[in-house]
Amino acid sequence: MSKWSKKLVELGIELPEVAKPVAAYVPAVKSGKMVFTSGQLPTVNGELIAKGHVGQEVTPETANACARQCALNALAAINSVVDLDQIEQIVKVTGFVSVAPDFVTHSAVMNGASDLLLEIFGDAGKHARTSIGVSSLPLGAPVEVELVVRLKG
Amino acid sequence: MSKWSKKLVELGIELPEVAKPVAAYVPAVKSGKMVFTSGQLPTVNGELIAKGHVGQEVTPETANACARQCALNALAAINSVVDLDQIEQIVKVTGFVSVAPDFVTHSAVMNGASDLLLEIFGDAGKHARTSIGVSSLPLGAPVEVELVVRLKG
Amino acid sequence: MSKWSKKLVELGIELPEVAKPVAAYVPAVKSGKMVFTSGQLPTVNGELIAKGHVGQEVTPETANACARQCALNALAAINSVVDLDQIEQIVKVTGFVSVAPDFVTHSAVMNGASDLLLEIFGDAGKHARTSIGVSSLPLGAPVEVELVVRLKG
Repeated sequence: MSKWSKKLVELGIELPEVAKPVAAYVPAVKSGKMVFTSGQLPTVNGELIAKGHVGQEVTPETANACARQCALNALAAINSVVDLDQIEQIVKVTGFVSVAPDFVTHSAVMNGASDLLLEIFGDAGKHARTSIGVSSLPLGAPVEVELVVRLKG
Repeated sequence: MSKWSKKLVELGIELPEVAKPVAAYVPAVKSGKMVFTSGQLPTVNGELIAKGHVGQEVTPETANACARQCALNALAAINSVVDLDQIEQIVKVTGFVSVAPDFVTHSAVMNGASDLLLEIFGDAGKHARTSIGVSSLPLGAPVEVELVVRLKG
Repeated sequence: MSKWSKKLVELGIELPEVAKPVAAYVPAVKSGKMVFTSGQLPTVNGELIAKGHVGQEVTPETANACARQCALNALAAINSVVDLDQIEQIVKVTGFVSVAPDFVTHSAVMNGASDLLLEIFGDAGKHARTSIGVSSLPLGAPVEVELVVRLKG
């Protein structure tokens, strides 16, 4: 068992089953030394853990937990195409937060994803990030997160 | 004529003229073994085939056809910088759907793009995908799609 | 002093201090021959130069200036991980514009970013671009821009 797998065990984090895409695509694609994931929703066993707009039906605290779950699902997506231990660097995190027009604390929501990646990967988890507030997301999800990572070698 | 060109003919799909960017940029850029396209609108001969928000002025069925047209325009954009037959893999599809806040069936809309790519490229068309619901798109377009593809060799 | 640095001096453009990320991430990450930036807000010395939605509290002209400032901040972000003179090509510009649902002139706003890149980099600044209208952005920013660039060698 190598570095990241060991860290997951240490942190008591279990990688979920890869979320089944809701349509005609795949969870992640490897391109050379990079892996691009599909947008991941905050599902556990195929069910959204929250539904609605952040700042309305969904509290910022719940949304932060959703972003963490999205990131965990994104790691499971990567793990479906390459061994997680092949990750050299988390390159980019893009987070879409379903919000009303007056919402301004997208960053606090998306820290749920970033903090998980830093916990697991340390310096290799330091990523560029874009956070955006959108009208709505598939299935009524409050948050959606996609990752771009770099592989070793 | 190689693989993908032949498949297009077989399917009776004609690659459109590359859509002229609406501003100061280019349709696609090659970076090493990857090509990134600009966001493509559902235009035919420079005219939007539908206008407005999906679920309001635009039906989900029309929006699905729009997503297909966006993907076709994205292939034309790629074809403006490299021969389409150089494509090894469709890596990433990002779809932006102009919607009201209560819209939840983004995936059905974006399948218009994904299904086209699977028809043409088969296994090489299996991509990662992110679908997002946004407030509005350039020129009032109901859908906008961008592609990242990997080239052979 | 090499090409791009010289051009900046010639144009009288001073690269700002890199904007401090508003949360747990870094301004830019290098992956092989590419650099991905975080989403950049239109800040000068840490303060937003405008706040609100374009077409409402913020005029399209001000939003265009905001997009330019975002692009300048993105160059500063790249400069924090590699020398700007290492840039071979601006590959992709993604611009998020905070707007009401009836907004349609995203392209004119985003030209603020594109024009700056063309001024500085000439042909090497010709990029693919996606412009999107969103509900809201972090801190109430009217525009957010991210870049993907290719390095020489």
